[in-house]
Amino acid sequence: MQIKALPGFRDFYPEDFAYRRHILEAWRRVALRYGFEEYDGPPLEQVDLYTVKSGEEIVTQLYAFTDKGGREVALRPEMTPTLARMVSARARGLKKPIRWFSMPQLFRYERQQRGRLREHFQLNCDLIGEAGPAGDAEIIALAVDIMRELGLTSGDVRVRLSDRRLLNAVLGEVGLPEGQHGLAYQLLDKLGRGEYGKVKEALEEGGAPPDALARLEKVREIRDWDGLSDAFPAAANAADPLRQVVGTLEAMGLGEFVDLDLTIVRGLAYYTGVVFELFDARGELRAICGGGRYDHLLEALGGDALPALGFGMGDVVLLELLRERGLLPQASPQVDVFLAAVTPEDLPEVLGLAHLLRDHGFRVEYPLTMTGVGKQLGLANSRGARYAVVLGPEDRKRGEVQLKDLGSGEQRSVSQAELPKILRGMGLEDSRAPSPQPSQTSHG
Amino acid sequence: MQIKALPGFRDFYPEDFAYRRHILEAWRRVALRYGFEEYDGPPLEQVDLYTVKSGEEIVTQLYAFTDKGGREVALRPEMTPTLARMVSARARGLKKPIRWFSMPQLFRYERQQRGRLREHFQLNCDLIGEAGPAGDAEIIALAVDIMRELGLTSGDVRVRLSDRRLLNAVLGEVGLPEGQHGLAYQLLDKLGRGEYGKVKEALEEGGAPPDALARLEKVREIRDWDGLSDAFPAAANAADPLRQVVGTLEAMGLGEFVDLDLTIVRGLAYYTGVVFELFDARGELRAICGGGRYDHLLEALGGDALPALGFGMGDVVLLELLRERGLLPQASPQVDVFLAAVTPEDLPEVLGLAHLLRDHGFRVEYPLTMTGVGKQLGLANSRGARYAVVLGPEDRKRGEVQLKDLGSGEQRSVSQAELPKILRGMGLEDSRAPSPQPSQTSHG
Repeated sequence: MQIKALPGFRDFYPEDFAYRRHILEAWRRVALRYGFEEYDGPPLEQVDLYTVKSGEEIVTQLYAFTDKGGREVALRPEMTPTLARMVSARARGLKKPIRWFSMPQLFRYERQQRGRLREHFQLNCDLIGEAGPAGDAEIIALAVDIMRELGLTSGDVRVRLSDRRLLNAVLGEVGLPEGQHGLAYQLLDKLGRGEYGKVKEALEEGGAPPDALARLEKVREIRDWDGLSDAFPAAANAADPLRQVVGTLEAMGLGEFVDLDLTIVRGLAYYTGVVFELFDARGELRAICGGGRYDHLLEALGGDALPALGFGMGDVVLLELLRERGLLPQASPQVDVFLAAVTPEDLPEVLGLAHLLRDHGFRVEYPLTMTGVGKQLGLANSRGARYAVVLGPEDRKRGEVQLKDLGSGEQRSVSQAELPKILRGMGLEDSRAPSPQPSQTSHG
Repeated sequence: MQIKALPGFRDFYPEDFAYRRHILEAWRRVALRYGFEEYDGPPLEQVDLYTVKSGEEIVTQLYAFTDKGGREVALRPEMTPTLARMVSARARGLKKPIRWFSMPQLFRYERQQRGRLREHFQLNCDLIGEAGPAGDAEIIALAVDIMRELGLTSGDVRVRLSDRRLLNAVLGEVGLPEGQHGLAYQLLDKLGRGEYGKVKEALEEGGAPPDALARLEKVREIRDWDGLSDAFPAAANAADPLRQVVGTLEAMGLGEFVDLDLTIVRGLAYYTGVVFELFDARGELRAICGGGRYDHLLEALGGDALPALGFGMGDVVLLELLRERGLLPQASPQVDVFLAAVTPEDLPEVLGLAHLLRDHGFRVEYPLTMTGVGKQLGLANSRGARYAVVLGPEDRKRGEVQLKDLGSGEQRSVSQAELPKILRGMGLEDSRAPSPQPSQTSHG
């Protein structure tokens, strides 16, 4: 038998895991700098949690099944319903604004195409209880700073920014009746990607005025405030919150990342204000990140009426982009110090020393099977160790070891007692837990 | 509607997440010090992967279902089959011994009792391609060092150590036929926990000699090598590998954690050598960790014949023990510096400064809605910030800020340009990515 991983699921061998960790740790570092706190929920939830928000139609994309207790359950396809459930359960006890992030693995059973995955990791950052544009800017800045943290510049990644309130005003200005707004959003969305003929036809058949559609097609060309005012002078007033968001991002020094783009709609029905997506600047890949404001969602899911906004950022497109740009880290060795014994009688002391160095936070290996010193040093090299520490009968008598720099080949005798200090002095990192920070005292 | 989490699944609110992270980061730190590399596999696998090893009976405990492609799949109940699958697929390309660890979330659908969970996180450490007792000692030492890393001592946690080869010899010495070894293992296992009458009866009915059973019951009393030799003089020879393991642990300075305990069998059929479990010293909780040598498993799962051993350590009992011993970390604040603006005109400069400080790795917040300075400082306090930075029109003119220590109440003017350096000097931690270590150059 040779059982394989399920199609659409990834095995993370150590080298793949290192890339995954590179991305997830960058997510975490930046989120923490924005004062966000990490949470998580179960990877399995009741199906109802997802259908309430997205309708029965989402079931076709779920990994859903009936569990042994007769419950309809699903592997989580997104994090927002879990977030809403958790916040609702404790809303009154949580200080606002709530700044929370999570990095769940998510699952969708889509028909598989071109190596499309059925799982991915997604950073979710949400800001709950803040209605003003400063909140929108804060969330967008967080997404942009993750790009910068990973080495990407405004030449690599663009933020495309829009606002559902502004789009509503545009649809009103061109004279589309409310009943056609749903289709019109689809048109806007498709304008950004080509192939919008079908949606346009549907609108025409529904009685949309041809001149309204012609005006609407112009949103593609709008890239700045002047363009907006020229094309839609009435609607442009509805752009005030968006202008404030852009102004805030400029004050933060992040303005160069941002493009106004009215074809950004976000498919999900629940957005109520600013919406945005991050794309690679060449437009070759799918979206890196998408988000916006969803002020009515928590209430719709049975919780308190709290304004909220957030984004989701997946690991797959980001990994692709970092790989293309040569921004993935080099594989790093697993070992700082490799200990070698000259004779079997030296082994007990090698073991004691190995343990001492590990207690000091160094990454340490030693040969599990006794062989010649040359072979042991070969193993040290193959593990990428920076230093070898060789211990023989003479060294033991003197309480010393031979410390060998495996890069330069230099070797010298050093005292066993001094070894941890010497290694630290040579730039080896101490991986012990950080000692509690003075900041842990509360000022309540 | 008010949908809840599924029974047996945990929500990790930020304070719960912090505990989970405390444990998982200790796992990771210690595993890395032992030269182990992190990997992961899919949380969903084909059911066959689990039945091959554990028989059809495990299906009753699986979260198993048929996916939309007609595949029988299951949420992973353990990591070893995935590990075996991944290693088998690349066995020849991987340098031996393979030192790998993973921290998967695992799932079992057991009938729920006393708040028993249906998911938990489990550290899996495995050493593949090493047959000798030094490998066993290395794996046990890793488990013990995690206890020490978390602040637990040999007074809190005990390693109970046995060996399937030794147990086989004991069963032979007391005169139990091979056909009864399976039941005899159950008896040994239950001897350690009381209630072994039923298994004993089954053995008697199966024709086990009564004096054999009487001798077997004595294993409970064996705590050291002398006790072993007295009770089972012939079998004691089979204890040589175990003696070497204990000797190695003693050389590492970890001997004080270890007890010989022949009632440790490990339920799983696939163990072939040393087996061990970690328990709280008072014996009040379930096992913290269990593992051992499984030299034939990889081959049985369709891979190469490679000796292997490893352990699994769950987060739930460990969390319980740390909580009981008062060893969980205090909640730490989410913010280093809170910026406050005196007038709305100061906000752009506050935003620029916020971004500068975040770029320097500090955790920074500022008010998203403009209010009075007093209220802003109140928010700073409620977020546990160590420092407030207040910026008013006069400060802007002078290129300065008011830096206020929220613990002591002290306040002074400092230059904006110097602020990052001053904050670092006051012990705030820089959370930027560590710069690449010199050790990243290879010595191939």
